[in-house]
Amino acid sequence: MKEKDCIFCKIAAGEIPSATLYEDGDFRVILDLGPASKGHALIIPKEHYRNLYDIDDEKAAKILPLAKKMINKMTEVLGCDGYNLVQNNEECAGQTVFHFHMHMIPRYKGDNVGLGWHMGKLTDADKNEILEKMK
Amino acid sequence: MKEKDCIFCKIAAGEIPSATLYEDGDFRVILDLGPASKGHALIIPKEHYRNLYDIDDEKAAKILPLAKKMINKMTEVLGCDGYNLVQNNEECAGQTVFHFHMHMIPRYKGDNVGLGWHMGKLTDADKNEILEKMK
Repeated sequence: MKEKDCIFCKIAAGEIPSATLYEDGDFRVILDLGPASKGHALIIPKEHYRNLYDIDDEKAAKILPLAKKMINKMTEVLGCDGYNLVQNNEECAGQTVFHFHMHMIPRYKGDNVGLGWHMGKLTDADKNEILEKMK
Repeated sequence: MKEKDCIFCKIAAGEIPSATLYEDGDFRVILDLGPASKGHALIIPKEHYRNLYDIDDEKAAKILPLAKKMINKMTEVLGCDGYNLVQNNEECAGQTVFHFHMHMIPRYKGDNVGLGWHMGKLTDADKNEILEKMK
């Protein structure tokens, strides 16, 4: 199902042109217009899901095998040295388009992409609280 | 198959104790010892794969449906406002343990986790070069 006025629905359907690297019945893979590095691409399902919270399981199952295929091919094409997969859910996590998408960001030795985070320390209090609540 | 001296093989097998949130025949989900935010967890396959480049397709297919289940449950438990999935491949991309793992990082409004990147601009030269090579 498509959502009216969703730009990624239109891109995935081919109604808005994009630099398409791959397409099948379920997904379109395009170059990101604001790349973190050369070759930064997005996997976009043709069906509309807001994000990982509500994506269909059967569709979700196809994404990492596709990402694997894409990064192997792209690494050969780009000559990059590694890859980050990043998938953001909700505004506080940096999601800006509310149609599920997975970023594939090529990394090159010595690049300045960032993407790290400050490592804290898992406290016993947090650990015990979370383990208890997850039971 | 397990790799000798791989710490994530040992954690996944339960030979090294961990704060386990979920376990099945294929995966163990644990709290990260250096959390970016409260509840930061890792999905670790029990089989050894270096990263996304070489993971088995059938195993890879199970990861996003599991991540979906985990973030829905964890969001309820933690009261967080969103989630980042991050999966790093090779050293230049920030991979430090060379056994496939997917980070699930809870995000809270106003947190200071970072994880953004500088957005460049997709140039016609890059676009055309990549599209041509991907043919």
